[in-house]
Amino acid sequence: LVSVEMLAVGKELLIGRTVNTNANWLGRRMALMGGMLERVTTVDDELDVISSAAREALARYPDFVIVVGGLGPTPDDMTLKGIAMGTGRKLKTDPKALEMVRRHYADSGRRVPLTKERRKMAVLPAGSSPLPNPVGTAPGVRLESGASVIFCLPGVPSEMKAIFRGSAEQEIAVSMGRLHRAQARLKILGVFESALAPVIARVKAKYPDTYVKSHPRGREEGESRIELDVAAVSADRDEAVSVAAAVAREMGLGVERLGGRVASWRGAGGHRG
Amino acid sequence: LVSVEMLAVGKELLIGRTVNTNANWLGRRMALMGGMLERVTTVDDELDVISSAAREALARYPDFVIVVGGLGPTPDDMTLKGIAMGTGRKLKTDPKALEMVRRHYADSGRRVPLTKERRKMAVLPAGSSPLPNPVGTAPGVRLESGASVIFCLPGVPSEMKAIFRGSAEQEIAVSMGRLHRAQARLKILGVFESALAPVIARVKAKYPDTYVKSHPRGREEGESRIELDVAAVSADRDEAVSVAAAVAREMGLGVERLGGRVASWRGAGGHRG
Repeated sequence: LVSVEMLAVGKELLIGRTVNTNANWLGRRMALMGGMLERVTTVDDELDVISSAAREALARYPDFVIVVGGLGPTPDDMTLKGIAMGTGRKLKTDPKALEMVRRHYADSGRRVPLTKERRKMAVLPAGSSPLPNPVGTAPGVRLESGASVIFCLPGVPSEMKAIFRGSAEQEIAVSMGRLHRAQARLKILGVFESALAPVIARVKAKYPDTYVKSHPRGREEGESRIELDVAAVSADRDEAVSVAAAVAREMGLGVERLGGRVASWRGAGGHRG
Repeated sequence: LVSVEMLAVGKELLIGRTVNTNANWLGRRMALMGGMLERVTTVDDELDVISSAAREALARYPDFVIVVGGLGPTPDDMTLKGIAMGTGRKLKTDPKALEMVRRHYADSGRRVPLTKERRKMAVLPAGSSPLPNPVGTAPGVRLESGASVIFCLPGVPSEMKAIFRGSAEQEIAVSMGRLHRAQARLKILGVFESALAPVIARVKAKYPDTYVKSHPRGREEGESRIELDVAAVSADRDEAVSVAAAVAREMGLGVERLGGRVASWRGAGGHRG
């Protein structure tokens, strides 16, 4: 089962100024998608608190952490800095995010300079991607930490919902098992990776929606050794399994034609998610 | 400063069935008392999750943990069992609690036998005290763990509030040292939040122990509209009022310098926490 946690950031939620309707909306959304929000943690706009709450959440190994609030231009909007601390990253100005912020003000029709405060909304943890905000200024943010995917969304409900729908929901739905994934791993001996490359290209052209990737593993008793990962994704479980098996079989034939051999093979059981 | 955490227990809060208005009420209550709810953790009705969330909260050494929900007669009401696990205690039928439960049914004027399910509401972690529930059946529970005091309250808002007011509030207020808090709210028109940010930073630097936070409220007749909350806390009532008023005044001057205006203003009456 896919596990999802929410980390809500904002003093207004803790002093009774604002009811956390975002948690309610996200919880219902998850339930409608066939999953469940497992925990909601609400914390103050404090750097060390945000970063430790993020670390605590990641230590429970959820598939997704949805962080809401604290992405704006003011000094107490410090979610991204806290997430950077919690995941051990530096902060960097992201050119794509800066362009999103710039364009938002340009579209407002007024001359609004890109001040330090406005540029701040484009300063993201290293390695993350900005997510378009169709109804506000601050972009959302997607980053990965270990096996978890973290989405950071603004606290304004309309912006939170719009970015969630546009940039998070589909990825969560896929991992919730609307799609099946089947995979296999082949251990190949006696073929150079460079010789295998055109075989992979040919098989991928025939089965476009598959994943085929070779990992050179040095030599085994004088022979070149390669591990080959194969995966297929489909809404139908049997289809995913049979496509992955067909791809693995064709790769095996190609290897033999090159004078090599498939020494072992694991897969291709289809699993949900 | 007194630290307070809330642990909200109940699947209904995580699947979007119920909005966590109890968190909002408790947060406001704490703020009015001159303190602050530092964290709210919402978890599912699962024994191991409740107990580990309680352990995690206690590991942050809060003065008070307010646990809300899961005190009823049904099998999925397992908060007290979870708290017993989390604090390393056995569960015991408490005679005073049993008498409270018995009397509640007797007062209802109907012949209601004390079934196993009803007796369950009097099974408390060893060493805890039952708290009278003036408007429902399940007693609240008070126990100590290390330097923390844990209050367990029912999730039904009227019961939660009645037990909190009757049996928890005074103890928390006393330990809070009766601080006074004064606050004001300004409605600001014609200034972007990002432009206001440096003004807030400057005023906060001048008055370090105050709370100043902007809440963007979209547009009003084409103008950007922001609500600004200002608060100051002091053991001296007049001091709290005059600091909050000074901060609000400086913010107003800053807004005017930016070409905006303060459209309305409420506060800064000091009230006793």
